[in-house]
Amino acid sequence: MTKSSTGNYFEDLTTGLEIAHATPRTVTEGDQAVYLALTASRYPLFCDAEFARSLGFQRELVNDLLVFHIVFGNSVPDVSLNAIANLGYADLRYGAPVYPGDTITSHTTVLGRRESSRGDTGVTWVRTTGVNQHGDEVMSFIRWVLMNKRDPDTKLGVDDAPGTPASVEASRLHVPPELTLDRFDPVVTGGRWFWEDYDPGERIHHIEGVAVEEAEHQMAARLYQNTARAHFNAHALKDSRFGKRVVYGGHVISIARELSYNGLENVLRILAFNGGAHANPTFAGDTLFAWTDVLERIDLGRPDAGALRLRLVATKNSDPNTEDQPFQVTDENGRERYHPNVVLDLDYTVLIPKRPV
Amino acid sequence: MTKSSTGNYFEDLTTGLEIAHATPRTVTEGDQAVYLALTASRYPLFCDAEFARSLGFQRELVNDLLVFHIVFGNSVPDVSLNAIANLGYADLRYGAPVYPGDTITSHTTVLGRRESSRGDTGVTWVRTTGVNQHGDEVMSFIRWVLMNKRDPDTKLGVDDAPGTPASVEASRLHVPPELTLDRFDPVVTGGRWFWEDYDPGERIHHIEGVAVEEAEHQMAARLYQNTARAHFNAHALKDSRFGKRVVYGGHVISIARELSYNGLENVLRILAFNGGAHANPTFAGDTLFAWTDVLERIDLGRPDAGALRLRLVATKNSDPNTEDQPFQVTDENGRERYHPNVVLDLDYTVLIPKRPV
Amino acid sequence: MTKSSTGNYFEDLTTGLEIAHATPRTVTEGDQAVYLALTASRYPLFCDAEFARSLGFQRELVNDLLVFHIVFGNSVPDVSLNAIANLGYADLRYGAPVYPGDTITSHTTVLGRRESSRGDTGVTWVRTTGVNQHGDEVMSFIRWVLMNKRDPDTKLGVDDAPGTPASVEASRLHVPPELTLDRFDPVVTGGRWFWEDYDPGERIHHIEGVAVEEAEHQMAARLYQNTARAHFNAHALKDSRFGKRVVYGGHVISIARELSYNGLENVLRILAFNGGAHANPTFAGDTLFAWTDVLERIDLGRPDAGALRLRLVATKNSDPNTEDQPFQVTDENGRERYHPNVVLDLDYTVLIPKRPV
Repeated sequence: MTKSSTGNYFEDLTTGLEIAHATPRTVTEGDQAVYLALTASRYPLFCDAEFARSLGFQRELVNDLLVFHIVFGNSVPDVSLNAIANLGYADLRYGAPVYPGDTITSHTTVLGRRESSRGDTGVTWVRTTGVNQHGDEVMSFIRWVLMNKRDPDTKLGVDDAPGTPASVEASRLHVPPELTLDRFDPVVTGGRWFWEDYDPGERIHHIEGVAVEEAEHQMAARLYQNTARAHFNAHALKDSRFGKRVVYGGHVISIARELSYNGLENVLRILAFNGGAHANPTFAGDTLFAWTDVLERIDLGRPDAGALRLRLVATKNSDPNTEDQPFQVTDENGRERYHPNVVLDLDYTVLIPKRPV
Repeated sequence: MTKSSTGNYFEDLTTGLEIAHATPRTVTEGDQAVYLALTASRYPLFCDAEFARSLGFQRELVNDLLVFHIVFGNSVPDVSLNAIANLGYADLRYGAPVYPGDTITSHTTVLGRRESSRGDTGVTWVRTTGVNQHGDEVMSFIRWVLMNKRDPDTKLGVDDAPGTPASVEASRLHVPPELTLDRFDPVVTGGRWFWEDYDPGERIHHIEGVAVEEAEHQMAARLYQNTARAHFNAHALKDSRFGKRVVYGGHVISIARELSYNGLENVLRILAFNGGAHANPTFAGDTLFAWTDVLERIDLGRPDAGALRLRLVATKNSDPNTEDQPFQVTDENGRERYHPNVVLDLDYTVLIPKRPV
Repeated sequence: MTKSSTGNYFEDLTTGLEIAHATPRTVTEGDQAVYLALTASRYPLFCDAEFARSLGFQRELVNDLLVFHIVFGNSVPDVSLNAIANLGYADLRYGAPVYPGDTITSHTTVLGRRESSRGDTGVTWVRTTGVNQHGDEVMSFIRWVLMNKRDPDTKLGVDDAPGTPASVEASRLHVPPELTLDRFDPVVTGGRWFWEDYDPGERIHHIEGVAVEEAEHQMAARLYQNTARAHFNAHALKDSRFGKRVVYGGHVISIARELSYNGLENVLRILAFNGGAHANPTFAGDTLFAWTDVLERIDLGRPDAGALRLRLVATKNSDPNTEDQPFQVTDENGRERYHPNVVLDLDYTVLIPKRPV
């Protein structure tokens, strides 16, 4: 019997299963620097210790998405090594801030599953949670994954797919209690707009475009210890559907989110993902662009800050600010689908200061 | 009105304008490591804490050029997003040493400008200064930039171009007062030559050549939060003059400077840039080489160290140590121009120990 | 006389010569993060401070191979700038653990040499040792290198090649005295197998494959300040035997070792290299795979942990888990040689817990 693991299949991830993931991770200044070199993040909360302290934090925070990628990556060997696709996210919430030096341990619960009608694949819903060395939850999210079966010829007939919330309710959004905005300085963020200034229905084009290279997305996924073969095994992928490596979808989220600084400079922190889809694959050589649609202004019942629900869309090889770029197209069966240039559709909620009085 | 910024144009940067740049940066050990992975820097002051302490410093310093790139990159969104070219540098001086953990804030003053005779573009002179969290200046420099105009058809007729010094005077060179060379050990630097050994007129070939990849120059520019589109937006650049991404000129400076360790091992710190030009563009796939011409030996009036004024030249795809590589060529109009293989011409001043008695 | 160095040749490295290498290195959290981004290392001792503390260490250790690469890279400018090939390793032993913040200084002794029968090249044996800032040895190893001669036409007739041990004796393996396994938790490592479970003769395929890019191996070698031209000087290498850059062999060791986590999760630390060969060159674009043959179970005379002697083999562009991949082939002269797809053959010894009673 071989001692190495080929990962879990649909049959292995039974509803209710609890998995404690191996290799907890001490997140460091080094991880922040590599993340920055891969994304050009400019939100100051994650790279300016003085700004972070002025808001009541101990020092600069670990980038929200770096935390997500590490928790996600930690779950890959147990959950999605045999995934065909990551279909969606729901109910992602951030908890305690993560500081450089903190150690994050992750675990996953299988929420339910639904075999395909043909019985050769299935969708598995899981909740993955990251906890710091003090036992505080730093983030938790649901994702569902299209999985290969170990035995595609034997139908199990399982279907206990869980419901997932369409969005994270305002009452469940976590604002760190240490946050104070008395000394918030928009010169530091470069932001001219506050919570009140963003109107539902408004679209913000984020202007810049950024090309993705093989070395970059591989370094990103490896930094997160995400070993999914679709990102690395060029030899095997020659014979795959796309014939090449696919960029880790989370890297696309990061590129889009960091592009979104231009127009959302005052955003402090991600509070939640309501839902999200990797609409189409991204490959090395693609240039990514992003826009944001403002969906909702959420009052958190405090005078200094509110939340914005945003839809972040990324496209490839088409600049939606200067080119006509449809979001959806109607396919030959009359179904609405994402335009092939659309690579990300993320519905998420952020924390942003209210305009000082 | 869109909330994102397309950057300032020639018209926007009026003489006397003061800009406080967003996103101050806490520079970390992580940034140093990424810089090292991109440049192979071997000067021990920046990677050997024990050596740095033996010279009176608290610990290893942040690499001089990493400080430059961060201050420069910080100014890009406000100054040079619509630049056609970065034409030159002058009067760059280093101040207080930067340690890992320090936070650098940058600001820029517009010194003057000159519209082109056709009125469609213009040159803008700015001074950008970086300050640490204690309020100490860490560096300051003048650069001038060929800018696009927002409205190329309306001539403004402005011309108040400032003078710039041909070099930084010796009296204005800053040697950190904590520096002591009593315990300087050339075994640590690997250096055999001291201040007295370098003769004006001498040329030092730095031997090694190093290829530049797209992922590397993109990671470099992103590490510095320099989002100039010429380095990233492959989709738009397909239709540009070069048809592809251009390597950030500062990355070329870093590659050349770190190559220059071989022959200048005892150099401690950059004190100043007197002037500099990115003679020709560098593209991914190019192999870079470098030589140094010793221009001047400057006595700083202290017994333990002096300054050297050096000219650092980088070439691409031609090894000046083994191939006949002209520095200049005469073009069809009889004008002297940089040879197309020359990519950098930097006049700078460094600090180096005198030979111990 | 030029001040830059073209490196030592066979003639320069005379038996008995002692070289103190320049540029000691303070290894940081940043170096660990870049290493992780280049290798996806998942052994928790190097990325989980809490796990490391549970075993009696101060915090997470610097990755064993990062220490090796830094010590090795430090020796390159003096030892192997004019190397044709790195032929082998012997008697590599690890000593004191290295923590982020430690500074490593390296020195090399020439053990002996043997000129080729034609007299145009020669093999040089050296021992290189790394020492931390407290004077403790962190590692030491023998390597032998095929060197160019400065004057290939003048035969020296030297042959005092030293003997090298076929393996590191058990009594010379160093287990850090602070190690305690009372609180060892296999949930953290993800390991299901202990010392007793690995049987000599057993083969473990490590499943994943990972492609190597030019930017990645250049960043790896630069992180280690390894400036050997075979990895960087694309311009000169156009006319070389392979016509292109060769991946630093140590990067191949790291890729293979970090792939080996899958099946060797409980391995704590490398104790020794008994021998090793870079069987064939690796180039950018290759996909690497690895397997491990268990050679020997070594009892260290303690109840909590033992050693395993392992043979780690890496292949390129052929997945030995699913494809028929011979290890050796018989060439036209009837000699057994490594199959052209085999790129690494490393005989090494690791520390692993015994099964808790």
